[in-house]
Amino acid sequence: MIIVIKTETNTLEIQRICQELQRLNATPEQIVGKHKVAISLVGDTATINPQQIQQLSPAIERVLRVKQPFKLASREFRCGESSEVFVETPSGFVAFGQNRPIVAIAGPCSVENEEMIVQTAGQVKAAGAKFLRGGAYKPRTSPYAFQGHGERALSLLTTARQETGLGIVTEVMDTADIDKVAEVADMIQIGARNMHNFSLLKKVGTQDKPVLLKRGMSATIEEWLMAAEYILAAGNPNVILCERGIRSFDRQYARNTLDLGAIPVLRTLTHLPIMVDPSHGTGQAEYVPAMALAAIAAGADSLMIEVHPNPGKALSDGSQSLTPQEYNELMQQISAIAQAVGRCSPSFLRATVDSSLHKHRAARAICDQTITAMISKK
Amino acid sequence: MIIVIKTETNTLEIQRICQELQRLNATPEQIVGKHKVAISLVGDTATINPQQIQQLSPAIERVLRVKQPFKLASREFRCGESSEVFVETPSGFVAFGQNRPIVAIAGPCSVENEEMIVQTAGQVKAAGAKFLRGGAYKPRTSPYAFQGHGERALSLLTTARQETGLGIVTEVMDTADIDKVAEVADMIQIGARNMHNFSLLKKVGTQDKPVLLKRGMSATIEEWLMAAEYILAAGNPNVILCERGIRSFDRQYARNTLDLGAIPVLRTLTHLPIMVDPSHGTGQAEYVPAMALAAIAAGADSLMIEVHPNPGKALSDGSQSLTPQEYNELMQQISAIAQAVGRCSPSFLRATVDSSLHKHRAARAICDQTITAMISKK
Amino acid sequence: MIIVIKTETNTLEIQRICQELQRLNATPEQIVGKHKVAISLVGDTATINPQQIQQLSPAIERVLRVKQPFKLASREFRCGESSEVFVETPSGFVAFGQNRPIVAIAGPCSVENEEMIVQTAGQVKAAGAKFLRGGAYKPRTSPYAFQGHGERALSLLTTARQETGLGIVTEVMDTADIDKVAEVADMIQIGARNMHNFSLLKKVGTQDKPVLLKRGMSATIEEWLMAAEYILAAGNPNVILCERGIRSFDRQYARNTLDLGAIPVLRTLTHLPIMVDPSHGTGQAEYVPAMALAAIAAGADSLMIEVHPNPGKALSDGSQSLTPQEYNELMQQISAIAQAVGRCSPSFLRATVDSSLHKHRAARAICDQTITAMISKK
Amino acid sequence: MIIVIKTETNTLEIQRICQELQRLNATPEQIVGKHKVAISLVGDTATINPQQIQQLSPAIERVLRVKQPFKLASREFRCGESSEVFVETPSGFVAFGQNRPIVAIAGPCSVENEEMIVQTAGQVKAAGAKFLRGGAYKPRTSPYAFQGHGERALSLLTTARQETGLGIVTEVMDTADIDKVAEVADMIQIGARNMHNFSLLKKVGTQDKPVLLKRGMSATIEEWLMAAEYILAAGNPNVILCERGIRSFDRQYARNTLDLGAIPVLRTLTHLPIMVDPSHGTGQAEYVPAMALAAIAAGADSLMIEVHPNPGKALSDGSQSLTPQEYNELMQQISAIAQAVGRCSPSFLRATVDSSLHKHRAARAICDQTITAMISKK
Repeated sequence: MIIVIKTETNTLEIQRICQELQRLNATPEQIVGKHKVAISLVGDTATINPQQIQQLSPAIERVLRVKQPFKLASREFRCGESSEVFVETPSGFVAFGQNRPIVAIAGPCSVENEEMIVQTAGQVKAAGAKFLRGGAYKPRTSPYAFQGHGERALSLLTTARQETGLGIVTEVMDTADIDKVAEVADMIQIGARNMHNFSLLKKVGTQDKPVLLKRGMSATIEEWLMAAEYILAAGNPNVILCERGIRSFDRQYARNTLDLGAIPVLRTLTHLPIMVDPSHGTGQAEYVPAMALAAIAAGADSLMIEVHPNPGKALSDGSQSLTPQEYNELMQQISAIAQAVGRCSPSFLRATVDSSLHKHRAARAICDQTITAMISKK
Repeated sequence: MIIVIKTETNTLEIQRICQELQRLNATPEQIVGKHKVAISLVGDTATINPQQIQQLSPAIERVLRVKQPFKLASREFRCGESSEVFVETPSGFVAFGQNRPIVAIAGPCSVENEEMIVQTAGQVKAAGAKFLRGGAYKPRTSPYAFQGHGERALSLLTTARQETGLGIVTEVMDTADIDKVAEVADMIQIGARNMHNFSLLKKVGTQDKPVLLKRGMSATIEEWLMAAEYILAAGNPNVILCERGIRSFDRQYARNTLDLGAIPVLRTLTHLPIMVDPSHGTGQAEYVPAMALAAIAAGADSLMIEVHPNPGKALSDGSQSLTPQEYNELMQQISAIAQAVGRCSPSFLRATVDSSLHKHRAARAICDQTITAMISKK
Repeated sequence: MIIVIKTETNTLEIQRICQELQRLNATPEQIVGKHKVAISLVGDTATINPQQIQQLSPAIERVLRVKQPFKLASREFRCGESSEVFVETPSGFVAFGQNRPIVAIAGPCSVENEEMIVQTAGQVKAAGAKFLRGGAYKPRTSPYAFQGHGERALSLLTTARQETGLGIVTEVMDTADIDKVAEVADMIQIGARNMHNFSLLKKVGTQDKPVLLKRGMSATIEEWLMAAEYILAAGNPNVILCERGIRSFDRQYARNTLDLGAIPVLRTLTHLPIMVDPSHGTGQAEYVPAMALAAIAAGADSLMIEVHPNPGKALSDGSQSLTPQEYNELMQQISAIAQAVGRCSPSFLRATVDSSLHKHRAARAICDQTITAMISKK
Repeated sequence: MIIVIKTETNTLEIQRICQELQRLNATPEQIVGKHKVAISLVGDTATINPQQIQQLSPAIERVLRVKQPFKLASREFRCGESSEVFVETPSGFVAFGQNRPIVAIAGPCSVENEEMIVQTAGQVKAAGAKFLRGGAYKPRTSPYAFQGHGERALSLLTTARQETGLGIVTEVMDTADIDKVAEVADMIQIGARNMHNFSLLKKVGTQDKPVLLKRGMSATIEEWLMAAEYILAAGNPNVILCERGIRSFDRQYARNTLDLGAIPVLRTLTHLPIMVDPSHGTGQAEYVPAMALAAIAAGADSLMIEVHPNPGKALSDGSQSLTPQEYNELMQQISAIAQAVGRCSPSFLRATVDSSLHKHRAARAICDQTITAMISKK
């Protein structure tokens, strides 16, 4: 059971509510988000009447008993509608969501040098991408493998951002690096290996940048949504889920098994936008186009694809990177599929962003109105 | 190493060749197919020179050293080209293959009664299906669950075939039933649970009807191709591979994990046509359309979908069956995706079959010419 | 719901009962075993009162509503006690069960020639084995791999049986071969790849020889018990379950993941005896001893281990075979562990069989008394 | 290729070596551990001659070309011998290793309150445990579940440590908490969900306390050893590997699949000590004893078992916790198995620690001598 407290309620009143809850033999735990405080009741809450709790204080906004273990991430929580995540970039806001055009993210596995990253950024932008991806901190299986150029790579991403106007997506691996990464990134990536790093999830939940949450390589869909719930519960509503392949018994030809079936499943369970990464999902460049097209046909809202100017010489993940030319061709095909499933405005390869219309505050206001509307319906 | 013997070579000459091979310290094993005999050399053949073997007899058509363990199924074996499987139906031959329109197969999990099967057949035909699926013998986890109506169901399928002109696909589970099933079916299905039933594979390999080979639920792609190789090696060249979902760690929402990544992988490994069954692949009707569209976008040549007039009352697999109306709508969407990937002639929803042109012998002749051409190139 | 019919009830009365059940809107299905007929009610039986059914006829022995989907295999069905399976061998009956000494089965993957099989049989007997294993029909991934010597191998097993007095365990893969195999084998093996071959399960259920049922490589424990239920429901009560490793994501060092955790789980779910095959469970001879000892410590009732006089030259599975010498040493260690867990009478390495005491009819009588006692308790 | 630099080499010389290496077209990367610096050569080192590198500088201790990707963790690196990890506790040093008695670790999932933790500590000590486990920071799937008492729990562990003399094992989840945890813990645990948290691995590698590294729930054995390599490469040689169950397709009865086959595999691959956690490995208290015994029979060096005074009321993981009484009984059985496999000195249930003999410096000296001996052999 979740008790949402009204904004600007003072600490004393919250403490009083907690004391009252303890008298009901429940164990209250405060979830202090950036914008909101909620109280979760741990233990056997089955016998507790929500109305009784509502009456404990006028500071209680509402009392939720969500059947699914993920509460804020559940589609129920948005009255069955999809939410939209607006990400601010130098070119304006880009919207991710079920009723928006497909958003394309592309770039190399890791940032290698300035020429390479700026050039690639220009090429993927020309092909229609709205965001540049590129790793500064790289999770590598071997301590002896290239670990990313770290802060230097962050500054190269800043250069590429300035020169192209693309938004930047890059991964954070350590709670100690969040501030540095958030300064550069327009959207922060939590990688598959850190999906269960709860400290990291809590901390990206307390900062403002939208979060791209990759699925853990053996995470169930429920666990993945619970990881998103950690971020949402900490106060950051802007989470995008990225399927990137799960681990199965067969890894002979493809490195992972891309679970596209997760797309329609997520659509019924959550309101959050859905992205697919066919590059990690297959591990082989030659399989990426087929899986990219399939992801769009299955209903994905966004695609993240690895592109490298010279895959054979990449410092990491070369075998799964497309060349800029291959990426450009793939984007034409993606456009055709997107139209076939009615996803894409004709403006797909041009701007999907209207910077004058969707200013950040406006976007936030729309979100809040939706929530308010939903609450009043309940 | 595989030694293909020319057609109409007499037994004595084959025995002589085997004796010669034994002198080379190799263990020859005869693969007696319907149309051809081949000799496989078991053991350490790395040191044997193919040319030396070629000279053993003029009855030797060619000597193959295929690197992959699947030989006849490998794409190399067809010089990198896809093969086509022609299935004869009451309405003429239907072609399955990479350069052919998508072939749609639909129908209920099991044949329940005459009215139901004939009515469903008519409805799926109207929606564009070329084949009716329906189980007579059902592999069920529980001995107490409905096991299919057996021979009675076979005769109902015959009725539906006559009334609609659709081809029939139905499963065989026991070597003892192959003849009965082959009398009714235009294509014989080997189910996922029998993909490793080597006795069954060998026996469907010695009869004439094309075989639809489903992937075992934890079979690697290599094992699946080796199962196809059993059928091919026994002399039946008409095998279609059907991906139907693999077993993964997450079975909470979808019953299986549909491995669409297998499609581009198979395309690089084998010449055989590829089918997808999104009904078993997800286990939930609401996820079927997204996965059907994704399969086509990923390059599948054919779709098998469960359709039941009243899914809520189905004797088996009701939860994964579409209604005829839902199927009809899905077929419109499939058509749009197929066009977007350039797969589909405009005649998709009309006849994909030209009975005057592709008579069986003609088709077989074309195949044989292709093989001859390929051999001469080598 | 299962309705067990009294022995020697005539067919007319059974048909009458079925008609009565149809009036209750249930769909009865007869399970005709060798010794018993039962009627299973398919469909929604939740609203049916067992007592009401009991009153339909005096020929009804009892009406079972077992919560688990496996009924006859469930531990409930034996009032929480383990059952024993007695297997007749040339040296007398060997008992498998929780309160019996560990039974050792050993021998080569496949029967290669007379000298090899007779010699190996003598060596494993000397080490304490009660049964010789050896494949006549081999399930091989490749059609070009050695497929077993078939009937010739069966006759060599007969020779080894006569010369050593060991019982014989060998695999059947095709319903057409059951009679031939049953003539030679004292216990018939269903291999992992055929655990879901329901035709085969039904047919070994209608013959008399005990059945060793290996777990399918991705079968859940419930599915495995349902496969056993197929055999039990067809009238053969003598089933032994053999864990042989499941398929996991990691196959780099060990071929399979031996699921020893299945042992205590099975012990709580079923009354059937439990065997472990650490040879297939690991796929590497060097890992076999550790896993054999662990299996006994975890509570297994029997071990099946591959032994070959010259593993490096084996026609199949050489890498997982122990030499006779290694097997002999392992048996000493097994004996020590067995004593530590209180499993083993001091006579372990000598006879575990008392041929005068446990004649087949006597054994069967004991079993039947147990069942009768159990029924009367219910 | 790994180039180990002699201790006390100055920075300038290391830089000079790196420059020389770049001239060979290799990319050198420094691995700065606590006690050593090593240089790893990234890229194609196949053509580089180790002797040529050795001659670059007298400051180069040795040049290693280890075939396996894990170098310092490989058994080769210790000339095929097992290493020992000595952990200092208030009662002296406890040794973990293949030739040492089994070390028992026990305690509750999470530290709940002082009475509970002190009492449990006393009980597990009486049963033979040398370490108390107890979570202060808990990785929980749900943000609404009990997250551990954090620093307060650490101070309660200190109390329990003082009162019983047991060593303390507790988990760290955030790089920011390492110092706090290291102050209290005698051995720091990295949990399964953080096995791929490379930031955390690197940082525990630069501090002094021994590290217990749990296997990730879908980590291959190679990935697990690579995670250990991160810690070793950062300078901390004291790593113990803990198998705690992997994720498989069957989670109906046991929460995880305990991969005991990993024990003999690890023994051939690595010199590091091996621990098993049957509590997480099964998730059900009733299956824990069988798996604990099996682990010892398979060759584990240590067992970690969850014990709670009142499992039904535990704040986390109650279902997998033994009562102190059950734990005590299990320890008797473990002792019997340990003796049967020749693992255990008769003093098992009394002190396994000789505080006068194995002072820390002494232990470290022994380790260093072993390494030196090994290097000279190479």
